[in-house]
Parts: sequence; C-alpha cells; structure tokens
Amino acid sequence: MPGIERAIEKDLGWLRTSVTEADRVTYARDLWPRHHLAVRAGHVAIHKPGAVVWPTSTEDVTRLVRWAYENDVKLVPFGAGSGVCAGVLPTHDVVVVDLKRMDRWRSFEPTGPWLDVEAGHMGVPLEEKLNRRGYTLGHFPSSILCSTSGGWVAARSAGQCSGQYGKIEDMVLALELVTGTGEPVSLQRRAHGPSLLPLVVGSEGTLGIITSSTFRLHPYPSARAFAAWSFPTTEHGWEAMREMFQLGLRPAVSRLYDPFDAMLAKQGKAKSPKKTERKAPGLGALALRQMLKRPGFVNDLLHSDFGGKLMGGAMLLVIFEGQDETPQTHIRSARAICERMGGVYEGEGPAQNWLKHRYSVSYRQAPIFASGAFVDTMEVAARWSQLRGLYDAVRKALGEHAFVMAHLSHAYPDGCCIYFSFAGSAATDTNDRSWDEACERTYDRAWRAALKAAVEAGGTIAHHHGAGRSKAPRLAAELGAGLGVIETVKRVFDPKGIMNPGNLRPIEGR
Amino acid sequence: MPGIERAIEKDLGWLRTSVTEADRVTYARDLWPRHHLAVRAGHVAIHKPGAVVWPTSTEDVTRLVRWAYENDVKLVPFGAGSGVCAGVLPTHDVVVVDLKRMDRWRSFEPTGPWLDVEAGHMGVPLEEKLNRRGYTLGHFPSSILCSTSGGWVAARSAGQCSGQYGKIEDMVLALELVTGTGEPVSLQRRAHGPSLLPLVVGSEGTLGIITSSTFRLHPYPSARAFAAWSFPTTEHGWEAMREMFQLGLRPAVSRLYDPFDAMLAKQGKAKSPKKTERKAPGLGALALRQMLKRPGFVNDLLHSDFGGKLMGGAMLLVIFEGQDETPQTHIRSARAICERMGGVYEGEGPAQNWLKHRYSVSYRQAPIFASGAFVDTMEVAARWSQLRGLYDAVRKALGEHAFVMAHLSHAYPDGCCIYFSFAGSAATDTNDRSWDEACERTYDRAWRAALKAAVEAGGTIAHHHGAGRSKAPRLAAELGAGLGVIETVKRVFDPKGIMNPGNLRPIEGR
Repeated sequence: MPGIERAIEKDLGWLRTSVTEADRVTYARDLWPRHHLAVRAGHVAIHKPGAVVWPTSTEDVTRLVRWAYENDVKLVPFGAGSGVCAGVLPTHDVVVVDLKRMDRWRSFEPTGPWLDVEAGHMGVPLEEKLNRRGYTLGHFPSSILCSTSGGWVAARSAGQCSGQYGKIEDMVLALELVTGTGEPVSLQRRAHGPSLLPLVVGSEGTLGIITSSTFRLHPYPSARAFAAWSFPTTEHGWEAMREMFQLGLRPAVSRLYDPFDAMLAKQGKAKSPKKTERKAPGLGALALRQMLKRPGFVNDLLHSDFGGKLMGGAMLLVIFEGQDETPQTHIRSARAICERMGGVYEGEGPAQNWLKHRYSVSYRQAPIFASGAFVDTMEVAARWSQLRGLYDAVRKALGEHAFVMAHLSHAYPDGCCIYFSFAGSAATDTNDRSWDEACERTYDRAWRAALKAAVEAGGTIAHHHGAGRSKAPRLAAELGAGLGVIETVKRVFDPKGIMNPGNLRPIEGR
Repeated sequence: MPGIERAIEKDLGWLRTSVTEADRVTYARDLWPRHHLAVRAGHVAIHKPGAVVWPTSTEDVTRLVRWAYENDVKLVPFGAGSGVCAGVLPTHDVVVVDLKRMDRWRSFEPTGPWLDVEAGHMGVPLEEKLNRRGYTLGHFPSSILCSTSGGWVAARSAGQCSGQYGKIEDMVLALELVTGTGEPVSLQRRAHGPSLLPLVVGSEGTLGIITSSTFRLHPYPSARAFAAWSFPTTEHGWEAMREMFQLGLRPAVSRLYDPFDAMLAKQGKAKSPKKTERKAPGLGALALRQMLKRPGFVNDLLHSDFGGKLMGGAMLLVIFEGQDETPQTHIRSARAICERMGGVYEGEGPAQNWLKHRYSVSYRQAPIFASGAFVDTMEVAARWSQLRGLYDAVRKALGEHAFVMAHLSHAYPDGCCIYFSFAGSAATDTNDRSWDEACERTYDRAWRAALKAAVEAGGTIAHHHGAGRSKAPRLAAELGAGLGVIETVKRVFDPKGIMNPGNLRPIEGR
C-alpha cells in the first residue's frame, strides 16, 4: 500500500526494510493449514503485509515501535513462521517485524546454568551450540527446524521432551519485551508476589515484541533408556502414563498412540520425504478422497474394539534421559507400572526408531494436500479425571467431518494433552473449482465442532500450538471471567492496539 | 469507630460480626516481630480494626464485598494470622474478614488427584485428613499449626518439602476469588495463552478475597531415606545442593546450616518449649543483651574460617521420600555428589532429629523477646551465580546491627533461597522505657540495610514470607518496569482500592 511505502521510505531509512512483492508474499502467512487450502484454490495474496523490516537490536525495535506508536502503524512480530493457528495473518496496512537478525547470545552462565539469547535465534543451531558446550535446553518442538527462541516463548511452545524439561514457560527465567509504546521492559521470574512473566509467555505478539529470553539449561544427558509397551486400549495406556507421573517418574518422552496412529507410526518411518512430495494425484489419492468423504464410517470401524485389536492396540513409547545409571533405573520402575496396567513389553526398538525420525512427521502432510484433501492437528488438554470425556467428545465432533487419530505426548502429574490429527476433504463430488471451496467448508465445520466439544467437555482449546485467530472464537468461553483482565492487560502494554491486531481476540462467534 | 459500628449493625445483621474490644485487639496484628516490640513497649492498640466478620460461604463473601464496595468500607482478608511481614495491619476504619469458618472440602478427586478446599481450612487438620485417605498435599510451612490454605496461596508460601513438591504456586490448579467489586471469579491454570492465576497467587489480599483453591495432591509416601553431611564451608554445601538439583535429584528436604546455625540445630532440639517460655530475664538474658550490643565482633568471630572450624563446619540434611526403594536409590546418588564436594557423611541421625522437631523452632523466639532483645528472619533468593554475592551482602548489612546466622532450605535447579535469622537489641544501655524504642531503632536499621543490600546484590526481597508492609519500601526497586502493570492489575480487580489498602504498596522510602 502506497501510504505505508511512503512512510517507510521517509522515516525508516536507518532500518533494513522491504516493500517488494516477493517479500510481501513470503511474509503473508504462517503454516495454518487453511492457508494451504486458500493457496491451493489460487488465493495467494489476500494477506500480504505492507512491508517487512529486519531490526538487529533492542534499540532498533524500540525506535521502530515508537515510530509505529506515533504514526498508528500496526506491527506483527515474526519468528520463523511455523505457527499453525494463524497467529500471523497480516493485512496491507501492517508491517511485519522479522526478528531473525537478532540472534546473539547475550549472556551464558555455566554455573546457572542459563543462557540469555535474542529472540530470533533458530532452534536447531541453538541446541547444537549448547550441546557442544555440554548443555541442553531440553526443548524439542516438532517445529525446531523452522522456529525461533522468541517464537517459542510468544506461542507458549512445548517440546517432545516436556515430560522431563517442562514446557517453554518452565524454562524462561526472564525476558525482555518492547511494549506497544516502545518501552523496553525486563521481566524476571519472581519468588514472591504477583508474577508478570506468565502474562507475556503465550501472548502471541499482542503485548509487544519479545527481544530476548533467559532460559534455564541442563547438563547434556550422558545416558538414555528406551522402552515400548502395547496396551489393549488407549485408556489402559494413559492410565499407565498417569501412574508414572503421579508416582514421580519424569520420562523425557512418553508418547501414547491410539491403534491407528500406532499402526502408522510403525509403518511410515523409513519413507524419505522426497519420494512422497509433489506427487501428482494418482490412484491412491483418488481412493483417499473417496475414503475421506465418509469419515464417520471409517472412524467407527477403526476405533471399534475390533478395529483396535486388528491394528495391534495402543502403543506407548517411553524414553528416560539423564546421567549414568539413572535412566535404566527409571525404565525398570516404568515397566512395573505398565505391566500392572496390562501393557505388553515391545522392546527398545519402537522408541529408538521414533527418536531417529522425530522430526519427519511434518513431511507427510504435503502429499495429502496434493491429493486434494486436507490434514490438520488439534491439541487439547484436561485434568486426568476429565480426559476420557474430552477424548470421546472431540473425537466424535471431528469424526463427523474428518478421519481422526490421536496420540498423547505431553503428560503431567495432574493432566495430559491429547493431540488429534485429522484428515478430510470435500463432502461431495464437485468440479475442481468448487472442490476447494467445499474442502474449506468441511475444514471450518470440523474445527467449529471440535472447539465447541473441547470447551463443553472441560478441556482447553489449545496446549502448545497457541490460539491465534483459528481458535480465538472460543477463547471467551474458555477464559470466562478472566477475559476482562486479559483485555485490560492488553491495554496497559499496548494502549493503541498496534501489536498483532486481531490476534488472540477472545470474541465468540464464527 | 462508631461509624463502622453503626453501618455494621444496620447492614450486616445477616452475618456473624463483632465490634467488641477483645476481638478488635485479637485481630489487630499478625506475627510481624515489630508488633512484638510495640506490644512490649506497651503500644497494644494502635492497629485495632473497626470490626471483625466471619463469612461462611462464597455467597456471604460476595454480599459482604458488594456492601463494602458500595459503602467504601475497607476490608482485610484474614486466615490464621501467622504472617511475619505486616500483611495484616488494620486501622480503625477497616473490617477484618476472618475466613476460618469457610473450611469445607468442595470436591475431592482421587484420580486427579486433587482437592478443592475452602480458604479457611487450617493446615494440620487438612494434611491429616488427606493422609487418612492415602494422600499428601506436600505442603509443610513452619506455620502449618497456625495458617490456612487460603493464607498459603495469598502469601505464596513455601513448605519444608518444597524441593520435591514445589511452592504453593506449583500446587494450585485453580482458585476462586471474590474481587474488590464483589464478583466471584474462577481462575484455572491455563495450558496456553497469558496466565492469570500467577497474578492472584501472592497478591496478599490486595486483589480480592480468595475463597477456595484446588490443589494437586500426591500419593502418601510409603518410604523415606535420611542423610547428613558436614562441609568445610557453607559454600561447599550449597555447591552440593546445586549439583543435586541440576542433575535432576529432588530431595523433599535439603537444609544447609551455616556453622553457627548448625551448632544450634545440633543442640536445641530436646528442649521443651514450656521450660523456656515466659522466663524472666536472668543472668543469661543479661549476657545475651551485652553480646547483642556488639554484633559485629561476634559475627566476625563466628563467621571466620576459625570460628567455622570451631563449630564443626556447615551441615546439610537431606530427606528423600516416595515409594518403595526410590528414596534409598536417590540417597546413594546424593552421597556421591556430596562426597565429591568434600562432604563428610554424618549418618541418618541429624535429618531424623530435624524431622522430629520440625515445627519447634518458632518456640525459641519468645525467650529472646522476653530477655529484652529481638529476633527476626529474612528470606531472600537469587540464581546460583548470584548466591555468594547475595549471601555476603545481606550478612554484612544485617551483621552491623544484629547477630546473624543463616540456612538454605529451598533449592531449585536455577537458584536458592537464603534464610537469615538475626537477633539484636538496643545499641546502647538506656533505661527501661527508652530501651524498647532503642530496640525498635536497631530493628528498623537492620531491615533497611538488609533490604537495600539484597536488591543491590540482584536478589529478591522475599521468597516465601511475602512482602507485606515491612518489605514494600523496596518493592519498586525489585519490580522495575513491571510496577505499572501491577498497579493497573490492582485497579482492575479492586477499582476502589478497598482490599487490604496499604499492603504490598510498592513505594520507595523509609
């Protein structure tokens, strides 16, 4: 938009900026699957921002935000764009602030041990640099190849080893934030009194721009121990997880797959992503389309006791890590618990295999979109006593519109996260043009039903993907009376509402 | 005050209330040691409230607060009055709200396991009732005999087993609060997005009245393991504690006493509280007075390497608890760490003795006040890398005014709390009347110097006693830019400022 372009040229000469079409298209989206549907339907450019800027220091960010505040320009902080909930959905009057050029280590304290690192540091290099010094952050989100330290904090991320190391909010000791007025503030984890840090962790760019975080580190584990058990039903498996966590065991990884997810996990590993990418829709794709038109039938079959037995039951993978003999000791305690719950030991292999291919699952999505269908994930959480109700309600709600499978990969002493994967397509045969629109309608219906079901079953609408714009319509229902406080806090940090406007807006509807 | 009395009589007939002198004197104070000095000097009645009320339900509290809101009446929530920082310091125009008649179990879920309990439940009976059902809350503050579940949450309390079970903020899954406008709100621990629960935990009665809390429970431990090690210096001991927590060990109890505190811990146990209470100041008391007049000399002697050796060095007590063989396994890991740090194993006895007498330390304070001196405690915290600086700075600051000893009893992977005990008296001989005033002057000087030193050394001014009014003068220095947010949050929850006015006010000065 010319207005933004002129203002940028006039005022931001000191900053690296771009208003080129290529950059604006690149920064038009995150990895929200509905974007993929829109792009497949040919709607590439709806959400292009007005400009992209690359600050390199807190001073840059402060100066930028002050300018934006004075000139009523909207800003959207941007890490590496791996979000899946439309936390980034810019419009033509918005400036996207890419933080990846802020990736310095500000302070590293081995006796802490902790690291103060700028917000734009990419995940894998960060972990690798720490490993070389004998440490780990312990944070391994599936997005680690395409996400930043600041993005983790902003979205309240969880990694694959959350059982031992916690979610990102358990790792953040302090952070630096430039508020919506351009004021840099430093927030510490406090030992007493009201705590402010938890307001910013998970704020998804709506309170200001996170410029650095101080993370707790851990000694790099010298030993790991692996095990897997199959269970007659998913519920038998999660009762074993519950028992482990309530008796004080803290497996770095504990992943429970429902029968169909377990069957896929056993199969799909060895495939190279390159072979399946960009495949033209052939016979398999057409069969998938047909199957996904009647998801209810397929779901009923696969999730029946009969289907479960056919596929070999649910599967729990467990990995402990630490020093010396400790992980082996813990595996023995876990084994006693699992066998008491009816688990059958399946050896070390499945868990070792999982670790080897831990980041490859995302590559499986492209062929499904290429076939004309869609796939998405939804992670919800509840206390243990509400887990069964939540599991059944969301699976049923999604299952009317899509094919559903689930795994449980983040457990706590008091509750657990359920991670649903679902795939669907247009409900009826149409021509190619309206196929995409019919797909979008199924997609929207599935989400609407699932969010409603999650809230009604007493669950949360998100666990570690954030809420973004995709889940915001149910935020008010989840927050209840806390809503007013959240909105007031927003006004304190960002009085003009220039920070990622429209995101995390707890408005009922859609 | 007649105004309050008339209003109470006119409007609160439906509620149990009192305006009698006896009740107003009883509720005039908490256990802030400076109160004891004032009372000893004959100033009993300065802080009497106008009235005391006893609600029995959330509905009562809601109705009460709405009335107070409409009539601009100030309220001070009251648990069992065990606070030591003047979180309760009423004035004649204040109504104290004693919550002890709200002590029902609202909901108990064994598979959680969790308990929703009203705010006025006393500590010991709560733990005992849970134990009979096979559970523990895991929260054992020294005040457990005279504190309530709601008070723990309001003051952000820590118990003696925080190493394993965490502080109270780690136990609270949800809470019910009646805000300063009389609106009951229910706040849940959230999995995503900004978290509001941490604003209320530690709010010390300034945001509303906590009426119930849902706590995470744990299976009652079937086994315990004990050990103690002596170390050449306190720092050797805390390096061992740091190593334990950073390698993933979570002793329920790990208490490190500096040489003098260790010597006292070894001696004082067997004394019955009755024998030492209410003793008239005799020869021992006069000697104590003389010694405390020159605290610098005594501190220098005792805290020198020579003094440390004379007293047998620092002492670390460790207790693991859990199921079956696990605690013994952990003790072996701890032993390897302690011996690597130069610790000498002292057997199970010291830790077992400590457990037996775990709540008796508070009884030692009365004879010191009776002798004409004073004693108080100050708990600060810092990250491990700042611990040495904080320890030295606060010990030095206090040591110019009082005799100081310290122990470390709450450790974490990233830092530790230091718990100073200090005793002092008037700096010069005076007659009995001005003795008390001279005592107060020494007391105030010691606190002023210690709080300043703690903030300057990068520590917190509190860890689990709260800030109350006694530490509030340094809150602004500790909070920095977060101050504005705290004040805004206060205005949202309590727009008329009627909730515990004057408490936790982050104003620099004194």
